[in-house]
Amino acid sequence: MIDCIFCKIVKKIIPAKILFESENSIAFPDISPTAPTHILFIPKKHIESLDKLSIDDEKIIGKLMIEISEFARSQSLEKNGYRIVNNMGKDAGQTVFHIHFHLLAGREFNWPPG
Amino acid sequence: MIDCIFCKIVKKIIPAKILFESENSIAFPDISPTAPTHILFIPKKHIESLDKLSIDDEKIIGKLMIEISEFARSQSLEKNGYRIVNNMGKDAGQTVFHIHFHLLAGREFNWPPG
Repeated sequence: MIDCIFCKIVKKIIPAKILFESENSIAFPDISPTAPTHILFIPKKHIESLDKLSIDDEKIIGKLMIEISEFARSQSLEKNGYRIVNNMGKDAGQTVFHIHFHLLAGREFNWPPG
Repeated sequence: MIDCIFCKIVKKIIPAKILFESENSIAFPDISPTAPTHILFIPKKHIESLDKLSIDDEKIIGKLMIEISEFARSQSLEKNGYRIVNNMGKDAGQTVFHIHFHLLAGREFNWPPG
């Protein structure tokens, strides 16, 4: 997607601090962090949102979740815990329309989640 | 897992209002809802948390995310949007150690997510 800011990060047209990269996905810090660790994990494939997943994306999203889990463990985030959030659409406050999962850690999180 | 409350829901030993069921997964309302729609999606397989995912679970979790997306669309939740949350461990407030994804919809959600 030519006008997608996250696709431009994937293609390294826009610089970002890449914290994780695989054939499947890429991760970089949220520009407005809300926790000591606040990282966005995105598939390299342009998928607009959770609502736009197709059955063909099962492997991409399954792998992405495992990559988040492994990355968190590589940073010892599993010791105290972490929260994963995906915002789909207006009410959830989705602002970039390339599916992304927030990995939040480093503090205690409240309930409800927003 | 003999002592897992969510496994007992999967096996219908503990009754719950089943909102969705497939070979892969099951969904039922959160007992303490924090939004007009607040549903838990769980794989039937006992996986303790996101941290305990193995590479063999890629298909299970990928399929679960697609099932959430399809379920949300079947309820027209994509029109206004929804939020997906997974809590891993203590800081996130995980209370049941069978991985579950919260599907929250029906109101505007704040940021940060807890």
